[in-house]
Amino acid sequence: MNNAYEELSAHFRQVGDLQHVYAISSWDEAAMMPDGGGPSRGQALATLGVVIHDMVTHEKIGNWLDACSNLDLDEWQRANVREIRREYENLACLPSDLIHASSIASSRCEQTWRKCRADNDWDTMKPLLEEVVNLARQEATIRSEHSGLSRYDSLLESFEPGMRSVKVDQLFTELKAFLPGFVDDVLTRQVSSPVISMGNHFSVEKQRELGLKVMGILGFDFDHGRLDVSHHPFCGGVQTDVRITTRYTTDNFVESLMAVVHETGHAMYEQGRPTGWAGQPVAVARSSGVHESQSLIMEMQAGRSVEFMGFLAPLIRTTFDAAETDEAWTNQNLHRLYTQVERGLIRVDADEATYPLHVILRYEIEKSLIEGEVEVADIPELWDSKMMTYLQRDTRGDFRDGCLQDVHWNAALFGYFPTYTLGAMMAAQMFTAVKRELPDVLDQIGLGDFSGLLVWLRSNVHGKGSLLSVDDLLTQATGEELNASHFLNHLKTRYLD
Amino acid sequence: MNNAYEELSAHFRQVGDLQHVYAISSWDEAAMMPDGGGPSRGQALATLGVVIHDMVTHEKIGNWLDACSNLDLDEWQRANVREIRREYENLACLPSDLIHASSIASSRCEQTWRKCRADNDWDTMKPLLEEVVNLARQEATIRSEHSGLSRYDSLLESFEPGMRSVKVDQLFTELKAFLPGFVDDVLTRQVSSPVISMGNHFSVEKQRELGLKVMGILGFDFDHGRLDVSHHPFCGGVQTDVRITTRYTTDNFVESLMAVVHETGHAMYEQGRPTGWAGQPVAVARSSGVHESQSLIMEMQAGRSVEFMGFLAPLIRTTFDAAETDEAWTNQNLHRLYTQVERGLIRVDADEATYPLHVILRYEIEKSLIEGEVEVADIPELWDSKMMTYLQRDTRGDFRDGCLQDVHWNAALFGYFPTYTLGAMMAAQMFTAVKRELPDVLDQIGLGDFSGLLVWLRSNVHGKGSLLSVDDLLTQATGEELNASHFLNHLKTRYLD
Repeated sequence: MNNAYEELSAHFRQVGDLQHVYAISSWDEAAMMPDGGGPSRGQALATLGVVIHDMVTHEKIGNWLDACSNLDLDEWQRANVREIRREYENLACLPSDLIHASSIASSRCEQTWRKCRADNDWDTMKPLLEEVVNLARQEATIRSEHSGLSRYDSLLESFEPGMRSVKVDQLFTELKAFLPGFVDDVLTRQVSSPVISMGNHFSVEKQRELGLKVMGILGFDFDHGRLDVSHHPFCGGVQTDVRITTRYTTDNFVESLMAVVHETGHAMYEQGRPTGWAGQPVAVARSSGVHESQSLIMEMQAGRSVEFMGFLAPLIRTTFDAAETDEAWTNQNLHRLYTQVERGLIRVDADEATYPLHVILRYEIEKSLIEGEVEVADIPELWDSKMMTYLQRDTRGDFRDGCLQDVHWNAALFGYFPTYTLGAMMAAQMFTAVKRELPDVLDQIGLGDFSGLLVWLRSNVHGKGSLLSVDDLLTQATGEELNASHFLNHLKTRYLD
Repeated sequence: MNNAYEELSAHFRQVGDLQHVYAISSWDEAAMMPDGGGPSRGQALATLGVVIHDMVTHEKIGNWLDACSNLDLDEWQRANVREIRREYENLACLPSDLIHASSIASSRCEQTWRKCRADNDWDTMKPLLEEVVNLARQEATIRSEHSGLSRYDSLLESFEPGMRSVKVDQLFTELKAFLPGFVDDVLTRQVSSPVISMGNHFSVEKQRELGLKVMGILGFDFDHGRLDVSHHPFCGGVQTDVRITTRYTTDNFVESLMAVVHETGHAMYEQGRPTGWAGQPVAVARSSGVHESQSLIMEMQAGRSVEFMGFLAPLIRTTFDAAETDEAWTNQNLHRLYTQVERGLIRVDADEATYPLHVILRYEIEKSLIEGEVEVADIPELWDSKMMTYLQRDTRGDFRDGCLQDVHWNAALFGYFPTYTLGAMMAAQMFTAVKRELPDVLDQIGLGDFSGLLVWLRSNVHGKGSLLSVDDLLTQATGEELNASHFLNHLKTRYLD
């Protein structure tokens, strides 16, 4: 006879198994599936989503959780019970038919988005997005009634447990006060040392080969993962088989390579999570913000450092048969290329200085959308106006590179956007701690040796799974609560010193 | 309030959705997954398999089926009820823990097989295969007690409903009497017109390009399917997204191209099944034998005809930059290449004349294995002895190209092998009917026009799904019961006329 904890744990192992096939089928949808497979895939994932939802909200879980309070559990088991309870209370309030309707609507909306974006077609997108928003508001309302949080915070809680919009507002206000003027200063300074063009033809095969090589240097385990192509780079799959994607253009290699570095950061968090806890909530990644911090430590803190660029530049030159003596291919020019600041239209192509402004724009719109203060029909105008204010760019009529550029809202991911910038702040804060504890970490990285950094990340972040709250994780790893100062210092040091 | 048929139909739509993600995750396992992902994938699919098994054997299905007898249903609905009942009775007898154990064991055995085959390592394979055979015997015993069939027939029934080993024995006895002498005659004849070598370097990219082109000519719908690579060519995925695979060697293009033609035949059966019946058993492929007939009509009846070779040869020459004036690249030499008979070691590389001997060897071994007359430890010796008898080849000590060459037994597919040769006989019988009804079908195929053939297949086979029994399907399509005469006539005409 198993005790309640063993029953709970066996149940979540099964949940984990179904989440495994859900994750692989979702990756397949984005990376492999031909368009015609879309409707039935959407239907199939919706049904599996309901099966999973019914399992994680089964009433016997409530009984097992109650019975666990009488058991003698160790620290990890107690944390597992805590995380199961959190997830259970978070989900059990939602009716199955709402989950199913949301899954169908967001799958259709996401699949249509690909074509709408290509066609700059807001009119086709709008009613589908309205349906998704309508269902997300229903979800937020139900969650809010159960949790006592605001509607938006009740969605944010799913991605960033413990985070509240009042704290996000405070952090983002600090960024909004600093960044526009800072970007002006950087742009002025960049005028005197422009990037020299490296030409505009880079074969996809060579870019892929370079990406794979860099993944290996960063520590990606190819026995437990792959690199493929999708419309939008992402990290999916499962802990034992992490699937990252990038996208290639033959115009340049910059985007595909740094997408690979970024997604490798995510992947290594997944590959480094505690093993032996298959399906158990205590072993999953802590939050979307913490996940993003891992990708940004690789991409922004290590990847674009002058030290790593000194290691990467010869690899890039070898890949594309370029000579160091060519002024376009010097280490310096490559570093300038990889630290160029620009007020662009596209979030995923944005540099680290302008990126938070893209995020703040989306955060403000989605918060108002979920709270019912604005409607889907208002999005294009709000977008245009905020782009002008924050980034001085005119997006009127340009839906493709405006409000249709991201998949998130179409995929019903409301409350996700702020975690990108929370992650950037965490990454800077963590990297400050790494440099304090390992003073020559950047020198090691300059030799292509990521082992020191990786040991720190495995021990302080990856291997902790969801044992600690986000606050505790960050405080134990860095000695401080989350704050913007390290991120702002990092920007000033890299771009104005 | 839904009636019993509507309940049943909604239930099987959900089953179909879960089978969809099962199929995609299985394809992924074979075509995409890195080795390290294996154990957790096996676990995940095992759990999903149990969820599906529990759904298709749920006791409420029995009640719905009984209630359906009082409803006014149309022909397709009645056939759907019949197929659901067949599947229900076939599966409900098996306990969940046996299903789960078989899934885990065969997944592990299949994953290990890849390495064992490469390493010619029978000793590592043996205990894993013993576990799979042991579980398959348990399954066969339970099925046999419920169905009254012999143990082997109760497994054969899963792949070829209505077929019995007494009929297989009779058909195979006819082949065994004819083929060895026939192969002698063909080999003697071939000596006078040997194939001229086309060299031994063919780039994978060009082979893939040629394969994709030929798939399009045959009528494959790329909006609902893909071509990829796996250890063993197969057709997987789902009706709306059919995944076929091939494998490439740079030594020759023969194998990869005809694997593509073969799997495209399977794929077009899937793509042509009745739509609007998502998840309903009446709409699935009729049997493994009928499935194989569709691949072999494309590969053997149409694909290797002198007419199609006249169309294909210029495509092949263009692909590999070869001149028609080169004697190795003439239509005649290419046709000789594609109709070469050889007593080889490998089933999947075998020509259509020796292939049945490979199948008969396996059929005889697996029947004895399941009936408990021989043990796994006896397989290598049995294999060696039968290879010598049927194909005059010595396989002693060569497990790689001997008894380890196929995945089937490792994947617990007992009762599957005979369907390859049943399919070959059905294909010849069907193609005789096609030529009778469309006398210029081969001329059309010689122009690269498969539309006439496809219309016949859609109407007589693909579009029928599982509406009819195998016997009725074949009798309605060809006017005769399954027999060996058309297959034997086809061989005599192609190879000795």
